[in-house]
Amino acid sequence: MFKKLRGFRDIYPEEMRARREVINKIYSVAISFGFQEIDAPSVELLDLFRVKSGEEIVKQTFSFVDKGGREITLIPELTPTVARMLVAKKNIVKPVKWFSFPKMWRYEEPQSGRLREFYQFNADIFGVEKIYADAEVIALAMEILDSLGLSEKYVMKVSDRILMEEILQNMDVRDMDMAFKIIDKKDKMGEEEFIDAIKGFVPEENVDALLEILSIKGNFENVLNKFEESNRIRTLLNLSDILKGYDKKVIWDFSVVRGLAYYTGIVFEAHDYKGELRALLGGGRYDNVVELFGGPKTPAVGFGMGDAVLEILMKRENLWPEEKIWVDYFIAILPDHRKEAIEIATKLRRKGYSVDIDLMERSLGKQMKYANRINAEKVIIVGDEVNDGYVILRDMESGEQKKIRIDSIP
Amino acid sequence: MFKKLRGFRDIYPEEMRARREVINKIYSVAISFGFQEIDAPSVELLDLFRVKSGEEIVKQTFSFVDKGGREITLIPELTPTVARMLVAKKNIVKPVKWFSFPKMWRYEEPQSGRLREFYQFNADIFGVEKIYADAEVIALAMEILDSLGLSEKYVMKVSDRILMEEILQNMDVRDMDMAFKIIDKKDKMGEEEFIDAIKGFVPEENVDALLEILSIKGNFENVLNKFEESNRIRTLLNLSDILKGYDKKVIWDFSVVRGLAYYTGIVFEAHDYKGELRALLGGGRYDNVVELFGGPKTPAVGFGMGDAVLEILMKRENLWPEEKIWVDYFIAILPDHRKEAIEIATKLRRKGYSVDIDLMERSLGKQMKYANRINAEKVIIVGDEVNDGYVILRDMESGEQKKIRIDSIP
Repeated sequence: MFKKLRGFRDIYPEEMRARREVINKIYSVAISFGFQEIDAPSVELLDLFRVKSGEEIVKQTFSFVDKGGREITLIPELTPTVARMLVAKKNIVKPVKWFSFPKMWRYEEPQSGRLREFYQFNADIFGVEKIYADAEVIALAMEILDSLGLSEKYVMKVSDRILMEEILQNMDVRDMDMAFKIIDKKDKMGEEEFIDAIKGFVPEENVDALLEILSIKGNFENVLNKFEESNRIRTLLNLSDILKGYDKKVIWDFSVVRGLAYYTGIVFEAHDYKGELRALLGGGRYDNVVELFGGPKTPAVGFGMGDAVLEILMKRENLWPEEKIWVDYFIAILPDHRKEAIEIATKLRRKGYSVDIDLMERSLGKQMKYANRINAEKVIIVGDEVNDGYVILRDMESGEQKKIRIDSIP
Repeated sequence: MFKKLRGFRDIYPEEMRARREVINKIYSVAISFGFQEIDAPSVELLDLFRVKSGEEIVKQTFSFVDKGGREITLIPELTPTVARMLVAKKNIVKPVKWFSFPKMWRYEEPQSGRLREFYQFNADIFGVEKIYADAEVIALAMEILDSLGLSEKYVMKVSDRILMEEILQNMDVRDMDMAFKIIDKKDKMGEEEFIDAIKGFVPEENVDALLEILSIKGNFENVLNKFEESNRIRTLLNLSDILKGYDKKVIWDFSVVRGLAYYTGIVFEAHDYKGELRALLGGGRYDNVVELFGGPKTPAVGFGMGDAVLEILMKRENLWPEEKIWVDYFIAILPDHRKEAIEIATKLRRKGYSVDIDLMERSLGKQMKYANRINAEKVIIVGDEVNDGYVILRDMESGEQKKIRIDSIP
């Protein structure tokens, strides 16, 4: 007996129907926003990820040496690939708005909301310095969640690396990158553990002030209006104003910094409103990444959303689609009428209906039972009446059954 | 500068639009046939493939030892996974009709129609001994090709392992599996090389007769009617008759045997009508495979179709969709009207239109140029008229431009 690997998923048809419905909704929102789909390799040189994330990433990847001696890896994220693709394409029209929804892999201990193999929706805009691109990306993320019925079930938390860096500089923070990393892990640490860790980077007399700053969250404008006016504050207030045009409301939260060193501006995370789950999605501005991959300096903003936490939240809130297969028609076949039955099935299939047919020459009773179990909406029984151009049509919900002409099958 | 790995593909938006159109057609035909979508891990234990294909498969896979010491592999085919999933699911309703369209990987030398990473459409029916399932699967394969406009561009070649084994037995063939393997490679060998190879298995006096049998191809009924009537011949003629109900016509070709040892009945391959390319798809009946994976004996028939040869053929025949991005609307924004423009975009997006907007505050001229390059069908210019409830609507094809009320945007 063989088993699937831990942290990987077998998806059976009932579940897949629900997932496909969710995936289709996400796709259609991305396309409505004028984003264009791309597709990319699932395997890349490991160095591609080392460049962006350092040696640290290696132990979290499914990486190996291939038969040609190359260090390669299953992709743990899409950003390096997207940057590589962007650099490889000459004379590309800017802005570039790309999305995709590929599988990814991480060699981490599987737990709730964290799998070794998962799908991640990614959307990025390249080539726009202005905050309008940040707004467009945040609005897309929120519209996706809203379209899945989650409007009241999540909060979009926004912060800003530039403002935060100003504040940390004023507090004489020594190593900015390390400070962001520790702040990012704050929620997973005890307060004492956090204070111990941050003391290595912030002068002791400023720790309390830092804790206070990090605890600031709430109404976007209220928080920002407390700061002295500056270009950055005006830009941030403009972001919030533009988002209202998109019919979206975000909150400010200084504790959202995103651990990764490469963010250079706005950072954001969507969280379940109860705060029970990992982040639903996260992203921000990363204006220096394309350069890392040999391209010209290119402003960039984007986000990634895995499917695991999204599924958990939708199920918790009873918003996950019903896990149920169905077909429009099942064609039940009585002896000697297979060929006519198949002709009827073929016509309906070409009209776009999903049509299953008997393949086992079972009794009519057993065929009806099967039709019931695959949730056929209607059954067409092809018997001797077919010689005169008639079949029996049965509506499986009402149980109503009538003899109709073949050419009047709805 | 980083490069993608050899045999892998970067798919940019223009190409992806075309691929997505093809993929969607394939999906909708599979669903119209009452097949249900599944999804499965891209990584499995290597042993899963050893069981079915022997040690030979190992050198053709992207396989490695993971950080937990397990021998794992990127899947080179789907059948073992599907069999594993079937065995793991108790009390499943038969027949089972599953399809999926996952990525797969093979460590082979990349060449035309053969990549290291590719998509493969798979469809299988489990639980049906009767030839009706073979017909349903062959009809699905053909309807997919027909729906892509390929009706006149391919031939579906069918043969039968059972009939072929009878013939080979009558010729005193010693090792049936090896004989099938060599026959499968016949087209890639010279005639002399083939004769040398087959002599190890067929008595020399029967080689000519075998060559003659293998050269038999053509009208399905004509070929079979030359054989003495038997149950199997009747079954095969019945298959051909049923396929006519599906509006499909196949040809008989004894040289199609499919190399793999596990086929137990009907085998088939679709080939480009000019015979220039590798097989478009291949499949057949494999009634003993589920048992290999610890399940009860379960009749099975299915096929796989990679995306690479399909693409080459569609392009050769000018049937590949145009590689072009587009949006329904581009919203051009004049100074100080961003928020109103975004409100208009948001309304259109929610109606399902794909809508791009200016994010860069470029001049109207540059915005129009961008709209043109992303093939926007219409441009809405949001300027001062918006204060009175009006915008300018420009049809990009006709160049016609008019002032219309916001609430009358089509």
